[in-house]
Amino acid sequence: MSKLLITNVEIVTDGPNYEKKFIGIENNKIAYIGTEKPAGYDAAEIIDGTDKLATAGMVNSHTHAAMTLLRSYADDMNLMDWLQKKIWPAEAGLVAEDCYWGSELAILEMIKSGTTAFADMYFCMDQTAMAVEKSGIRASLARGLVGVTPDGDAKIEENAEFYKTWHKKANGRIQVMMGPHAPYTCPTEYLKKVVAKSEEIGAELHMHLSETEFEVKECIKEKGKTPIAYANDLGILDRGLLIAHAVWATDEELEIMAFKKARVAHNPQSNLKLASGIAPVAKMLAKGIPVGLGTDGASSNNNLDLLEECRLAAMLQKGTTYDPLVVPASEAWDMATYQGAKAIGFDNLGKLEEGYLADIVLYDMNKPHWYPRHDRLSLLVYAANSADADTVIIDGKVVMANGSVLNMDEEKIYAECETRGKRLIAN
Amino acid sequence: MSKLLITNVEIVTDGPNYEKKFIGIENNKIAYIGTEKPAGYDAAEIIDGTDKLATAGMVNSHTHAAMTLLRSYADDMNLMDWLQKKIWPAEAGLVAEDCYWGSELAILEMIKSGTTAFADMYFCMDQTAMAVEKSGIRASLARGLVGVTPDGDAKIEENAEFYKTWHKKANGRIQVMMGPHAPYTCPTEYLKKVVAKSEEIGAELHMHLSETEFEVKECIKEKGKTPIAYANDLGILDRGLLIAHAVWATDEELEIMAFKKARVAHNPQSNLKLASGIAPVAKMLAKGIPVGLGTDGASSNNNLDLLEECRLAAMLQKGTTYDPLVVPASEAWDMATYQGAKAIGFDNLGKLEEGYLADIVLYDMNKPHWYPRHDRLSLLVYAANSADADTVIIDGKVVMANGSVLNMDEEKIYAECETRGKRLIAN
Repeated sequence: MSKLLITNVEIVTDGPNYEKKFIGIENNKIAYIGTEKPAGYDAAEIIDGTDKLATAGMVNSHTHAAMTLLRSYADDMNLMDWLQKKIWPAEAGLVAEDCYWGSELAILEMIKSGTTAFADMYFCMDQTAMAVEKSGIRASLARGLVGVTPDGDAKIEENAEFYKTWHKKANGRIQVMMGPHAPYTCPTEYLKKVVAKSEEIGAELHMHLSETEFEVKECIKEKGKTPIAYANDLGILDRGLLIAHAVWATDEELEIMAFKKARVAHNPQSNLKLASGIAPVAKMLAKGIPVGLGTDGASSNNNLDLLEECRLAAMLQKGTTYDPLVVPASEAWDMATYQGAKAIGFDNLGKLEEGYLADIVLYDMNKPHWYPRHDRLSLLVYAANSADADTVIIDGKVVMANGSVLNMDEEKIYAECETRGKRLIAN
Repeated sequence: MSKLLITNVEIVTDGPNYEKKFIGIENNKIAYIGTEKPAGYDAAEIIDGTDKLATAGMVNSHTHAAMTLLRSYADDMNLMDWLQKKIWPAEAGLVAEDCYWGSELAILEMIKSGTTAFADMYFCMDQTAMAVEKSGIRASLARGLVGVTPDGDAKIEENAEFYKTWHKKANGRIQVMMGPHAPYTCPTEYLKKVVAKSEEIGAELHMHLSETEFEVKECIKEKGKTPIAYANDLGILDRGLLIAHAVWATDEELEIMAFKKARVAHNPQSNLKLASGIAPVAKMLAKGIPVGLGTDGASSNNNLDLLEECRLAAMLQKGTTYDPLVVPASEAWDMATYQGAKAIGFDNLGKLEEGYLADIVLYDMNKPHWYPRHDRLSLLVYAANSADADTVIIDGKVVMANGSVLNMDEEKIYAECETRGKRLIAN
């Protein structure tokens, strides 16, 4: 059994009465949290937590990791111009190795900013899975399925094969979903095939729904229904569904989502940047719908900084409902961690409590914005910087120590991504 | 003459065709920018700019520096509850030395996050001026003037005295304004006295106006006018005015502001967090009104990270106007730098061009979120982290080198602020 002991650390959920604590980790679980040094850890690996704040790692519940290669290539554009004139032509040149290095860059950025798990939907997903396995991060991966191209059916088979190869692999760090892209890229008959295949293999689904007002209007025009209601009619919500966006979800759709236990990935910054709007998160939370937070891809964000999304999610709901009491710091942090874990399909994850999976981040509080320390949770959500993430533990293993990522070659990643990114946009 | 030479650096405004450049600084001005090493710099202090991006420093156009002492003391509350039950009782215990250390903490945080100038309104401003002088930062300082207390007139005299003592001091790094707090704390007769005194001494004004809908409604009820129109009738806009907030500015008020050359400090995060709303920034910019960006005080933000405000300002305008083309990266950065400098009353500041004051920040691009480097300006505004600020030059002098602030004692500041902050909330 591998053992890890964190000493002298403060725990974010302890409230105003902070005491130095010990956290004992056995294999991939949190085995002990308390003020006394636990027995049986004399031979354990020790991490000094002095002046550090321990929290559960954040969960990025919606991204497209390999799109880091197109970061800041095209901004300040209309969505369809951006896709048709910039993103799709560049993506046409993507080869499998690009996806590997783009995923490594994304994972490096996530670990360095305190994210310990993510949900992804893209292509060449074997490459992303390999990068996940190597780096030590946790992920829920889906092959993006677009039904309007000739190889639509082949993609469904590819997703099923990907499920068989990778689901619950890497000590359970990897889960696989199926990824029907969106109502406007997947015809009704195609979505029925996806649902049937997901039933056959037992996979959950991850799908973009109700991202823009345009999508909603088109869906009503073509299918006679709003997107989430339409998806529900096709049985998509019965499969266990992670909905990316849900910006324009109606009250009726929120009822359906709560009843069918759908989960949401809220991407506040991407939704603002692409001028999609602001999702009714306060309403979702009031209905008990699990809402995780996501960055979306780095080409529409343009970073994978989930702490930024956590702060923004809280601020936006306060500012647009004119109620400063909605989404307090505790609820924002719960979305960034526990609700995100539920959203992407991991149980037993996202809390710093005994028995939970040991995905832990230690933040270095020796920075001006952490003083004075009136309330650590408020400091974390409203004042901290993601660069304060100092030490990251995932599945009981240290993957970053004092800012240095252990299983990844930073210089090589930068060089590969710079070259590959430049090649893609030259197409 | 003091000389400083930055070598091998990239310039953010250079567009896609990046070349390594030299920046020559003579005394407090940018004397040279070019691809060839300039003559006459053989004896100069040298800064290696390899893998760094050079920009003008950011300007925080509205804050209350010493309020760092109340950072994260009270959050997720209604504005009046927050002020009456938490902030005002705590502020009642403030002594001059608290303001000094709170200002040092604020300045430390600003320099470390790439801010080179700020506008402040608070009390015990001599203490803030001393911290500005010592640290090397640039500031426009105003004594906050509240007319509903018995010592209102004495405060006007104090502000005038402060002007005489500090205006244009510290090699011109310090400017002084007068700081009438707001229409709801300054009766009409009191504001007339402030205007008269500011005319007498030649000071410009810095005032909170049109922050909340409640303020606007009360102003209409009591004075028969919206706040900015009311202030204009009193001659306040004729004195040279920095308006903090202007969230609820009407179209008519925007016309007045443009005509009277008023400047705005837009505080997007504070306005969201306190549920005040979202200022019509796109409209202001379209009318040519200079819009700087501000953090507001750290007790309502809860940090002084202007890069976060810059990104948020761009995102909010796109997301709430449903137009992804408004406030592109270039305009957001202009607000964070040049327009902010104009807003707080400094000419010749906020651009990285020959002849401008030498307030320069070098960002370390050796981080995952800076790859690949398709567009440096877009990376800075949409992807960078304020902790990437590596080297900071203000008024031609290095104040931070490789992340280390030179004229400030970090450990001492943290210890003082922790003790003083705890004392204040025990009141």
